[in-house]
Amino acid sequence: MASRDVMRSTARGFGRYYNPDAGGALRMDTNTNALGPNPAAERYLREARPDINGYPNTYSDGLRDALASLYGLERENFVAGAGSDEMLDVCMKTFSDWGDACAVPVPSYSLYNYFIAANGGRAVESDLTPDFQLDVDGIARSGAKMAIAPSPNNPTGNAFRRRDVEDLLSRFEGVLVVDEAYGEYAGGSMIPRVREFDNLVVLRTFSKAYAMAGLRVGYAAACGDLADMMNSVKIPYSLNVLSEGAAVAALGDQGFIERSRRMVSEERPRLSAGLRRLGFEPFPSDANFVLARSPVDHAALVGGLKERGVMIRDFGSKRRTEGCVRMTVGTAEMNALVLDRIADAMEGMA
Amino acid sequence: MASRDVMRSTARGFGRYYNPDAGGALRMDTNTNALGPNPAAERYLREARPDINGYPNTYSDGLRDALASLYGLERENFVAGAGSDEMLDVCMKTFSDWGDACAVPVPSYSLYNYFIAANGGRAVESDLTPDFQLDVDGIARSGAKMAIAPSPNNPTGNAFRRRDVEDLLSRFEGVLVVDEAYGEYAGGSMIPRVREFDNLVVLRTFSKAYAMAGLRVGYAAACGDLADMMNSVKIPYSLNVLSEGAAVAALGDQGFIERSRRMVSEERPRLSAGLRRLGFEPFPSDANFVLARSPVDHAALVGGLKERGVMIRDFGSKRRTEGCVRMTVGTAEMNALVLDRIADAMEGMA
Repeated sequence: MASRDVMRSTARGFGRYYNPDAGGALRMDTNTNALGPNPAAERYLREARPDINGYPNTYSDGLRDALASLYGLERENFVAGAGSDEMLDVCMKTFSDWGDACAVPVPSYSLYNYFIAANGGRAVESDLTPDFQLDVDGIARSGAKMAIAPSPNNPTGNAFRRRDVEDLLSRFEGVLVVDEAYGEYAGGSMIPRVREFDNLVVLRTFSKAYAMAGLRVGYAAACGDLADMMNSVKIPYSLNVLSEGAAVAALGDQGFIERSRRMVSEERPRLSAGLRRLGFEPFPSDANFVLARSPVDHAALVGGLKERGVMIRDFGSKRRTEGCVRMTVGTAEMNALVLDRIADAMEGMA
Repeated sequence: MASRDVMRSTARGFGRYYNPDAGGALRMDTNTNALGPNPAAERYLREARPDINGYPNTYSDGLRDALASLYGLERENFVAGAGSDEMLDVCMKTFSDWGDACAVPVPSYSLYNYFIAANGGRAVESDLTPDFQLDVDGIARSGAKMAIAPSPNNPTGNAFRRRDVEDLLSRFEGVLVVDEAYGEYAGGSMIPRVREFDNLVVLRTFSKAYAMAGLRVGYAAACGDLADMMNSVKIPYSLNVLSEGAAVAALGDQGFIERSRRMVSEERPRLSAGLRRLGFEPFPSDANFVLARSPVDHAALVGGLKERGVMIRDFGSKRRTEGCVRMTVGTAEMNALVLDRIADAMEGMA
């Protein structure tokens, strides 16, 4: 039997990631796009017949050119790969040495700590303010080599104040990674500012508003120097040809993104109001999900909902989100169903 | 301007990977399958309509089950991801701490040194014997935490002696990664032995014999404990749904692999004989490529061939392969063309 002593010392405590058996339930636990799969990507996949025997372009130039055109930047401002998760991994490998500190907000995305430890770094937690905004002073003075600022933040849902992010970029000595996984819903991207700040990396994904999580595509934008460092560190041709082609097609259909944004901005207040009527305290959100404090036991609620065919995510045992659950904003029909099942589950617990 | 001082210290010297402009040339430089794209994978891609909006299975259970069935092992003996390149990265992240030594044969695959340095390790070169076999004693006594043994080796083409690999597994204290990227051509895989050696990780890819490099699929096989460590370190759902489905389909068509193997074993001796007639010294190969010492300047030959629409790979300036070039074994027609163009290029140089 092989002991975990053979493992990287910072990874010995690792377990498996969230991997529930969905069993046909309505998944309001992963914040994918409730409008359904990206139509332009699906069309591309039905029609395109790229050569699968040859290697993809080494640095996904096709996708990087399409991104440059969308944002009015250059190909060399972009890094593309298999999901923004790969981009997080590349950030850690590119910008941190063993034991280097990386400032991470609390609460935020649970995988940040994993990426830091997997790459030999040390997470330094920076508590968000009571209204879930950045502690700019604390991070600026932390001495960390890197910092992560997810905006909108997950699981809280709020975007960080723009002036705080700018202030942090000016004062922080390290590289600031602004993770805009839900950026399409919030507007106000930092991508157009990458040439202005030489310590800014912005991450984006095709897994949320772009509705193609199954294809694993993500990218980073940065000034040419930082992007070049990341490209030289990332695994060559990590993005497969079909996902790259589908992503290029999806970028060409901004109408779908606009419809997705509109649906969420219309339905999110209704979902929050419905939750409030049931006794929840929903937090303000700029994303396609809502975090809400539950009036009943969070674990029992999530379990009861699962039995009723709806999956939401439990954050109730984590610091700063005690008693809270997170759910994706769906269409009007989905949200009505979710609220109905929540009411039913709460009755079952009474 | 951002200086490379912000980079991980072991990665500051990194540049971009091999990224030639092929311009329609016949590519005998990447050792993909000359029979063309995997037919079962292409059929799957034409017909399958998986949900691209949902996340893939977190640990690619569908592919791992198909592999378990092919090899008579368990799902938990496998790790799947975006190419065997991701698996190499996961090996380094799982089994090495900062500064740990990893023994790498010389000559071998150039990306090994990149993966080691990208993850903060230290490559310790172990020269192969004059007939390109492993220096078992040297590696066993190196004190390295890990060692890599690519068999068949790239760019030399030969498989290592089975008893040497077994001997090394018994004597080496660290984890031995046997990279069988070209294993389908050689036979005699170490995968059926993973339960016997608790320090063995075997890597395989779908980019060579399986003819689907564009889809980026690779896997590792190991005893349950080592595979579990790697799964807990790897990025969750790094393999997209389409590539996973195509890989499962491809595993079901072993006839294609058999035809590919037969084509190479018939054509390789003919290609080598043709090279010999032109004054080359080809080395014995167990893979779908041949390394050969060129009777004329290696760089001029590779350049002259490119002008004539054929790309091969230049290894002539590297230690232990001085004056050598490497070319993929093609079909009878391709090889006749390649030999003809080589003769023409050599005439042009005379």
